Amino acid sequence: MTYCCALRLKEGLVFISDTRTNAGVDHISVFRKLYTFGREGERMICIQTSGNLATTQAVIGHLRNHLALNQEPNLYSANTMFEVASLVGQILRKVIADVTDNTHEQSNYFCSLLIGGQILGEDMQLYNIYPQGNFICATSDTPYFQIGESKYGKPILDRALSYDIALDEALRCALISFDSTLRSNVSVGMPLDTLIYQKDSFIIPKGKRITEEEPYFQDISKQWSETLKKGLQDLPIPNEDFFK
Amino acid sequence: MTYCCALRLKEGLVFISDTRTNAGVDHISVFRKLYTFGREGERMICIQTSGNLATTQAVIGHLRNHLALNQEPNLYSANTMFEVASLVGQILRKVIADVTDNTHEQSNYFCSLLIGGQILGEDMQLYNIYPQGNFICATSDTPYFQIGESKYGKPILDRALSYDIALDEALRCALISFDSTLRSNVSVGMPLDTLIYQKDSFIIPKGKRITEEEPYFQDISKQWSETLKKGLQDLPIPNEDFFK
Repeated sequence: MTYCCALRLKEGLVFISDTRTNAGVDHISVFRKLYTFGREGERMICIQTSGNLATTQAVIGHLRNHLALNQEPNLYSANTMFEVASLVGQILRKVIADVTDNTHEQSNYFCSLLIGGQILGEDMQLYNIYPQGNFICATSDTPYFQIGESKYGKPILDRALSYDIALDEALRCALISFDSTLRSNVSVGMPLDTLIYQKDSFIIPKGKRITEEEPYFQDISKQWSETLKKGLQDLPIPNEDFFK
Repeated sequence: MTYCCALRLKEGLVFISDTRTNAGVDHISVFRKLYTFGREGERMICIQTSGNLATTQAVIGHLRNHLALNQEPNLYSANTMFEVASLVGQILRKVIADVTDNTHEQSNYFCSLLIGGQILGEDMQLYNIYPQGNFICATSDTPYFQIGESKYGKPILDRALSYDIALDEALRCALISFDSTLRSNVSVGMPLDTLIYQKDSFIIPKGKRITEEEPYFQDISKQWSETLKKGLQDLPIPNEDFFK
């Protein structure tokens, strides 16, 4: 499985992806699921992938191929992030249609993608692309999307995240969402790829890979466990009614 | 959907069930999913149900019918909790086989059950009964089971729960697990039914129903949100590497 999460906030975009893929529990591998495209000063596009690895790699492969061959439309000729999302959705639909010949059961080949970024002249956008190639767009009411094993890490996002939150706090919130998921589900695994984009910077961030040895992640994971344990102990004690 | 959780701890057993059932989002109802059986001073048995409502009600109906008609084996003639789990598993398998005539697709009629309790002369036990009628038993390594929408509420149990934890702290931990689930998934809903059994008491607890108006639940839910928000703010600030 996979867990990817992307936030579209007032100050910028935050992306985190795990790297575990598996074909059965006895066949796990590390594959990057976070890709960046762009031109400094003009556009930044980040794509995260979940689902069938051949499908997701084919989509990224076609996108790169279009760029390499200067084939239109491509990620750099799209005028808006909406056109970017439409292009990726069309390619995804075609990849799945090709491999299934439009006749077989398609769901085995499904994948989902998150695409966030900014093109000069418009606001940042974040899209969640479904296997059918259609998509939805994040708003200030719902400033985040998840794909893959999303349930374990959803409660902390639902409680602590808002559109106005500072980027560094949002990053910590998303990392805790990942830590919770990693602890409860072995199909999601380290290392994690993170990327933070600051609004209107039009810089293509390198991002940071977090390995199991990363002291910062170890620190927040440990401190968070202590916070939760102490927080539970500090909750008011239930009255006798519960014990009758 | 449903969320039920049961803990088998050093000091006793804790059970919490939600009460929401749905046949589509436009057809939701309140049904109790936590049932108690027993004889004061001799045995206490608690059963929680998840899945097809007709199946779960049929299983409970047969168990009650056996008792009413003094039909062997029944919940009060079983010598051990293992025999109780076997009996319930057999009834569950028969209910599903009957409705599907052993020919149709069975999974639409599936249900899962948690059964915990204590019979005089043996230790407390907790079983997770699968739709096939087989089951697994909780241990001190894995002191809890969940059925239904289990993922949202699993991280807090994985982090904070251990076999040795005090009952009142375990109850708070399980209630937070429910609060997290309720906030992230509308298919799990209030009121909640809770029941705490103290080891070797052989009392059949009345249990407590928690409604949306319950001040204690409102208090811990609010305090927990504050704990998480403050806990996130107190985490060490990520260094500049993350923003490059």
